[in-house]
Amino acid sequence: MKAEIIAVGNEVVTGHTVNTNGSYLAKALQKIGIMPYYQSAVRDEKEVLQDALNRAMGRTQLVLITGGLGPTDDDLTKEAVCQYLGRPLVRREDSFLKMQAYFQEKGHTMPENNNKQADFPEEAYILENKTGTAPGCILKEGEQFIVLLPGPPKEMQPMVEEGVLPYFEKLRQKGLYTLDIKLMGIGESTLAQKIAPYLGQVDQVNVATYVGDYEVIVRITAQGKTKKEAKEYAENIKNNLSSCLEPYIIGYNEDTLEENILKLLKEKHYTIATAESCTGGLLAATLINCSGVSACYEEGFVTYSNAAKHKYIGVKEETLRAYGAVSRETAKEMAEGVKKEAHSAIGLATTGIAGPDGGTPFKPVGLVYIGIALGKETYVKELRLRGTRQEVREQTVKRVLYELYKLLRQI
Amino acid sequence: MKAEIIAVGNEVVTGHTVNTNGSYLAKALQKIGIMPYYQSAVRDEKEVLQDALNRAMGRTQLVLITGGLGPTDDDLTKEAVCQYLGRPLVRREDSFLKMQAYFQEKGHTMPENNNKQADFPEEAYILENKTGTAPGCILKEGEQFIVLLPGPPKEMQPMVEEGVLPYFEKLRQKGLYTLDIKLMGIGESTLAQKIAPYLGQVDQVNVATYVGDYEVIVRITAQGKTKKEAKEYAENIKNNLSSCLEPYIIGYNEDTLEENILKLLKEKHYTIATAESCTGGLLAATLINCSGVSACYEEGFVTYSNAAKHKYIGVKEETLRAYGAVSRETAKEMAEGVKKEAHSAIGLATTGIAGPDGGTPFKPVGLVYIGIALGKETYVKELRLRGTRQEVREQTVKRVLYELYKLLRQI
Repeated sequence: MKAEIIAVGNEVVTGHTVNTNGSYLAKALQKIGIMPYYQSAVRDEKEVLQDALNRAMGRTQLVLITGGLGPTDDDLTKEAVCQYLGRPLVRREDSFLKMQAYFQEKGHTMPENNNKQADFPEEAYILENKTGTAPGCILKEGEQFIVLLPGPPKEMQPMVEEGVLPYFEKLRQKGLYTLDIKLMGIGESTLAQKIAPYLGQVDQVNVATYVGDYEVIVRITAQGKTKKEAKEYAENIKNNLSSCLEPYIIGYNEDTLEENILKLLKEKHYTIATAESCTGGLLAATLINCSGVSACYEEGFVTYSNAAKHKYIGVKEETLRAYGAVSRETAKEMAEGVKKEAHSAIGLATTGIAGPDGGTPFKPVGLVYIGIALGKETYVKELRLRGTRQEVREQTVKRVLYELYKLLRQI
Repeated sequence: MKAEIIAVGNEVVTGHTVNTNGSYLAKALQKIGIMPYYQSAVRDEKEVLQDALNRAMGRTQLVLITGGLGPTDDDLTKEAVCQYLGRPLVRREDSFLKMQAYFQEKGHTMPENNNKQADFPEEAYILENKTGTAPGCILKEGEQFIVLLPGPPKEMQPMVEEGVLPYFEKLRQKGLYTLDIKLMGIGESTLAQKIAPYLGQVDQVNVATYVGDYEVIVRITAQGKTKKEAKEYAENIKNNLSSCLEPYIIGYNEDTLEENILKLLKEKHYTIATAESCTGGLLAATLINCSGVSACYEEGFVTYSNAAKHKYIGVKEETLRAYGAVSRETAKEMAEGVKKEAHSAIGLATTGIAGPDGGTPFKPVGLVYIGIALGKETYVKELRLRGTRQEVREQTVKRVLYELYKLLRQI
């Protein structure tokens, strides 16, 4: 099934909102084997939307439209679609009552202009909105489908997960299963060589590679008579691929590197502490974005100045004088010092020149040292990174976590 | 001038890359008064791109295409456009030599498949690529223009700033000037009421409002015979609006809240230190994203556990016992404690329940206290936030910074 995604809204076309809905929806559809072929964004104008819809209906089977379901006058997606299909808009009492209840729960009376959010094209299959007022809907038109979804990601995403995907999965009456293997430390071309026999369509299974921001992804999509059968096919290929890609794997599906690290830390009853210079709290913040991190993480230091590096985590003044703050030696003492101070099993440290200022011929912008103290060993690595200040700092965090993950899996 | 933006690439259509180029380009064009009317994303297929281009040429004067300028076989933007326009591809020796030099500088020989990156449609105006190998180009076709740009933002953005915008600014032969006022603490509808007489087109000046992630933006676009004249018009309106919106203004144009805070801190010779629980380093990381922050920021603590709150920043054990870690009292002691420990002028603190676990009926997920200790005063505020763990933490950071900025402007 080919799909097209249309985002409606001046704010998207003018760039004031980045179209993350398009990316989210495209990925969600592929999970159930529906392929997005086109994406577009149009202004809040009825004729323009109808034109885009007409074109989409001429080349795909499934058209998803996000945005324009709000209560104001420039929210005109439903009107435009009704006119295009020649169907009337009808008030759906059940949706109306749910919306009233939503407002009551918050102690408000529902404003009159919200009424229209309970109007739908005739014969619409309603998609409930649990996180806002605008319900969505699915319209069947012959063998084709039009799905209307609200623009705010917080409202749209649960509606897709709980309403849209199950609807089309059921409809397709065959089993599909998608599985991602996420890798770091390997380039896409080396990866492609390594897994060449698996790439492309082999029997019921398709294997493809994608490049993410910091990782490379191998996506396995399998078909079977049932979902269970498809899952078996996918898992089988996953096991084969996993063994040949083992050193590079940082997770599967929605796993993040930090969550997988946290799992290993919990298993091994390890605690961890951080001392950050150039990343300035970003490493701690990334770890702490995992719920349940308090079992392993108690404290961290942002030691931006030399004085703080000495005072809190015991970096020697001679070290700072002789080698400078951005040095292998300082990274080592920072990692060891924070481990000691926090009485943790592991100490992580970052120090570097994130730029744009502060670089010298010997220590250019992008030079970063990361340190990992674990047991009696301290592992220090020099990185040469490129990009803006923010990018250098983000890459540093990813690299520390990646190196830590590799170490944790070895012991 | 109406514009259309087309992103080429399977990775965009399938959602593996979020189309940030579309948003960036749309905003960049508006700075020089060119209005984006449509955006789309198509796969790496010649016919599909030609179809999208044909449609765009039928409804706009300027078409910008990003992506597909790379060295591999599926990079076919130039071929597709040449075929569409009926122009041959010709090798441009100057570009070829520059690319060779680019590789030599890195100590590599240029691979043969990069050669095609020096081929351009006949009569192309070349846009140099200073950060990669693929140059872009501008094609004039009657009264219309097609601009070809590389996909990677790092290569595309400088090309737009240094090549595309100056080209079209010169062409338009009139002055345009755009200016943003960024606000927090005010909703879009209240804002619209406050500035009603200015909204829309008044003489040479257009005023519109936009909603960002955390802020509201008033955009002033002025036209004049020259850029200087346009700037005068815009500045004039800016001054009027600024005085009536004064308490809400967090910056102008590309200003960030943290940069403006840093400016004030430097002016007042204030230093600042952070103690974070729920934000876990994100507040420090946000401040430290400003280059030159070392003049004002030396150290910070991630005190995730109660023990760390007591040990490093002196929160009393009785306070933690009596009121809990997420309380007005703890936030106050954290802010005061970190200020004292770091000998800084200002201490910032965050403590809260970011979720998804850890909430109780009395202290639900989203309950956050922020503390600002400054001079003899400590300012504590309770927040009730909604969203995911990451969203609660990001909102907390924005709110602390906003409250701090307000305080700093008062003293």
